[in-house]
Amino acid sequence: MRKVADRLLIAGVGLIGASLGMALRARGAVGEVVGLGRSAENLRVARRRGAIDRGERDPTRACRDIDLVVIATPVGTIAPLAATLAHLLPPAAVITDAGSVKEPVIAEVAAALGATAGRFCGSHPIAGAELAGAAAAARDLLAGHRCILTPARTTDPATRRRVRALWAAAGMRVEEMPAARHDRLYALVSHLPQVVATALMTAALAGEPDGLAIAYAGSGFRDATRIAASPAVLWRDILLANRAPVLAALARFDSAYTRLRHAIARGEGREIERVLSQARHARLGLEPRGRRAGAAGRRAASRSARA
Amino acid sequence: MRKVADRLLIAGVGLIGASLGMALRARGAVGEVVGLGRSAENLRVARRRGAIDRGERDPTRACRDIDLVVIATPVGTIAPLAATLAHLLPPAAVITDAGSVKEPVIAEVAAALGATAGRFCGSHPIAGAELAGAAAAARDLLAGHRCILTPARTTDPATRRRVRALWAAAGMRVEEMPAARHDRLYALVSHLPQVVATALMTAALAGEPDGLAIAYAGSGFRDATRIAASPAVLWRDILLANRAPVLAALARFDSAYTRLRHAIARGEGREIERVLSQARHARLGLEPRGRRAGAAGRRAASRSARA
Repeated sequence: MRKVADRLLIAGVGLIGASLGMALRARGAVGEVVGLGRSAENLRVARRRGAIDRGERDPTRACRDIDLVVIATPVGTIAPLAATLAHLLPPAAVITDAGSVKEPVIAEVAAALGATAGRFCGSHPIAGAELAGAAAAARDLLAGHRCILTPARTTDPATRRRVRALWAAAGMRVEEMPAARHDRLYALVSHLPQVVATALMTAALAGEPDGLAIAYAGSGFRDATRIAASPAVLWRDILLANRAPVLAALARFDSAYTRLRHAIARGEGREIERVLSQARHARLGLEPRGRRAGAAGRRAASRSARA
Repeated sequence: MRKVADRLLIAGVGLIGASLGMALRARGAVGEVVGLGRSAENLRVARRRGAIDRGERDPTRACRDIDLVVIATPVGTIAPLAATLAHLLPPAAVITDAGSVKEPVIAEVAAALGATAGRFCGSHPIAGAELAGAAAAARDLLAGHRCILTPARTTDPATRRRVRALWAAAGMRVEEMPAARHDRLYALVSHLPQVVATALMTAALAGEPDGLAIAYAGSGFRDATRIAASPAVLWRDILLANRAPVLAALARFDSAYTRLRHAIARGEGREIERVLSQARHARLGLEPRGRRAGAAGRRAASRSARA
């Protein structure tokens, strides 16, 4: 396999960064992997788990002879970090990120890079779990999942090819779309569910004395609220950065939720059944790919992609 | 093991009814199991899967020499079915149900049984999956989960003991509470999430042209909406029967959701982080048991996919 980088820098060796390093190193797709992080302990874990060859806490040392960088830190810190690294990296080094919000991040990074903005292309690998840190990473976390690239007008074609090759080497299905469209889509299918799952937990905690209700929760509640266990700072940044599309998605939810609530209040059985049926059929249609974790699911997914 | 019934009638051989039959027969905890249902095909599936010894579509034949009955049909049909069966069953036969709403159901059943209401005790086995029918049943679906009994003042002590022994023989952890308390708790941890998951699906379908957004959903959205794939009629009945506690739970959700939405609209990072953190810690506290339940559900789902 042709190497995607001679020396790759992963800035932020958390769940996504460490999983990427593990995948690339396991496949021999990269020369050396350097991890930049603030926590010596997390860097040690990342090294022990095979995510990086070397951990650095000093950006200057980390940037030496790097030809490709992935910034995999919380959304709010991507642009400031890109600005810092830009001064320390070799001028030819290509830069990407792994943030869940693209339009504002891309604009800030481009502004920070100025005349060298051509070496940046935004990425969003669609994979994750509610757990954080290198300890939760997995070699196959990314494989088979979508990675969305949001190249800007300023992005060089060569940058785009390098970034595409990076994620593809980790087994991801790479796809491109405009940043604004990405942000609207993920407000709806990722950021909205995060807000709703959080509110569900808050409501269940508030109901019945002493938060006792959740002790009675079955698997439905557990699944519906799983993502509420995700790191708070990471999601705070996402909700703030993608505020307008998130508020638009919340307005859509409000409208669907309020219609159903009114139907319940009025005892309108037929309307309740109609709404439940429509949601049910849509959710059943989503199922086969939902089981994608296994090889059979990936085969089914690639069949449907060919169809 | 002492048998919980010489001849058990399972009225409604769906996911719960068939799983109960499979568990009891596999453990040798019952003499004969008779299944009463409307669909000859589903009764055949139930028999083939070892959930029942014999399927009947005629209530009179089904009730002959029965000493224990579980009514495992949608909530709206439990009381009418109990009224019908009461006339056909031997007078000593004990009756229970498996409905997710207790107070109104219990009141209706007691009214239908009149002087013989002592032989009824309400039950709610807390287990399930979004799939329906005997084909989705599993021998270990109930094992290890809670079953809540809601005996009424009219319930005979002997009835309570028989019903308790029934669910315990299927491996469930049996617990008792007043019906009104049960209905408040499950409005919060089961019925509310169902409404919210449905509204999430509806919103995602409405957003972006042609319902395209959900094609981009990752595992977070899939988990948060899994229960929206549950049978519509079953949930319509639950939401209507438990209307007042459900509306109270929705009001709690409204309040939590609106607070978070306002914090996002105002860009209040600290408030957003506070709410996310609180929900996160509560959800992490729920985790260990969540793992098992999720895995069991997935096993059940993949079994039914193979069936």
